[in-house]
Amino acid sequence: MSGKHIRKKKNLPLIEVRRYLEPGPLVLVSSAWKGTRNIMTMNWHTMMEFTPALFGCVISSANHSFELVRRSGECVINLPTTALTEAVVGIGNTTGAEIDKFKEFGLTPEKASKVSAPLIRECYANFECRLYDRSLVGKYNFFIWEVVKAHVAVSPKHPQTLHYMGEGAFMVSGKIISRRKQFRPGMM
Amino acid sequence: MSGKHIRKKKNLPLIEVRRYLEPGPLVLVSSAWKGTRNIMTMNWHTMMEFTPALFGCVISSANHSFELVRRSGECVINLPTTALTEAVVGIGNTTGAEIDKFKEFGLTPEKASKVSAPLIRECYANFECRLYDRSLVGKYNFFIWEVVKAHVAVSPKHPQTLHYMGEGAFMVSGKIISRRKQFRPGMM
Repeated sequence: MSGKHIRKKKNLPLIEVRRYLEPGPLVLVSSAWKGTRNIMTMNWHTMMEFTPALFGCVISSANHSFELVRRSGECVINLPTTALTEAVVGIGNTTGAEIDKFKEFGLTPEKASKVSAPLIRECYANFECRLYDRSLVGKYNFFIWEVVKAHVAVSPKHPQTLHYMGEGAFMVSGKIISRRKQFRPGMM
Repeated sequence: MSGKHIRKKKNLPLIEVRRYLEPGPLVLVSSAWKGTRNIMTMNWHTMMEFTPALFGCVISSANHSFELVRRSGECVINLPTTALTEAVVGIGNTTGAEIDKFKEFGLTPEKASKVSAPLIRECYANFECRLYDRSLVGKYNFFIWEVVKAHVAVSPKHPQTLHYMGEGAFMVSGKIISRRKQFRPGMM
């Protein structure tokens, strides 16, 4: 379907993961546990460290995915572009307790390299994650993940991403500007 | 200077704070401690709860602001628009150990309502924060804040925000799209 533009991916050095997650896009979390799999939308996330590439996020215990990620200790963070907007809205408004979201929204599960959770082929990038620290899961549903493998589309150079604002509204990413020449080494 | 467009602000209900922070913009953290004050750029942050309005962020101990926010247990999260791009780049490439960034970049400190840290008048929104949980500060420099007061500009309705990508590059926020009619109640 709409992910037809994503033809080929390459490995991304883990130090560059922040390039795609730091701007704050909506992401899709895919997970698997004992023969079941699921996808959820997620917006409450942050980078936490460059090396290892740590990434923190809130996955509410009200979500069907919560037990899948908690029990498996794994997930894949997938970066959809605006080509997948309708699937994203559908995924965010249904529950994996009732449907298989891969089938329902025409998405293709692909085998990951280092985790059992599936990649979503139609997404621009896929970050395979292993649970690194669960100390805040009980209190805040906050998971700290280590990104152990990153796949990113060869083109386009800059994906058009969705950024959720609540109330059914999304900001679509706009132009890229560089101020690189004004940056001091080590401050980038 | 460039913040001249921000004329008037109103109080924002705390439940709506996520509208501005969830899309992942670069923010400016202002802080004060024992007669010193500072501003830093910050991109590693996430919403963590609606009520109370919890917000988590990484402030590296390498930053001059680290001790100010850690000791005072307070800060203000300020949302700059693209009108402040040059100031943002300047703030990110200097240290408060050497200069007063308010003076250096022509920004106006304003008295906050509930914390001692100053608001930055020229920013589109200001979120006054009190330290809520310091349990991950030692291990990850990760601070969990409660937003206790929020101020937001009356206009424009949608600020044009900066989203940092690393390497001196920024994504500028683009158009807003709504899919509200496709959302189920409670899923927004």
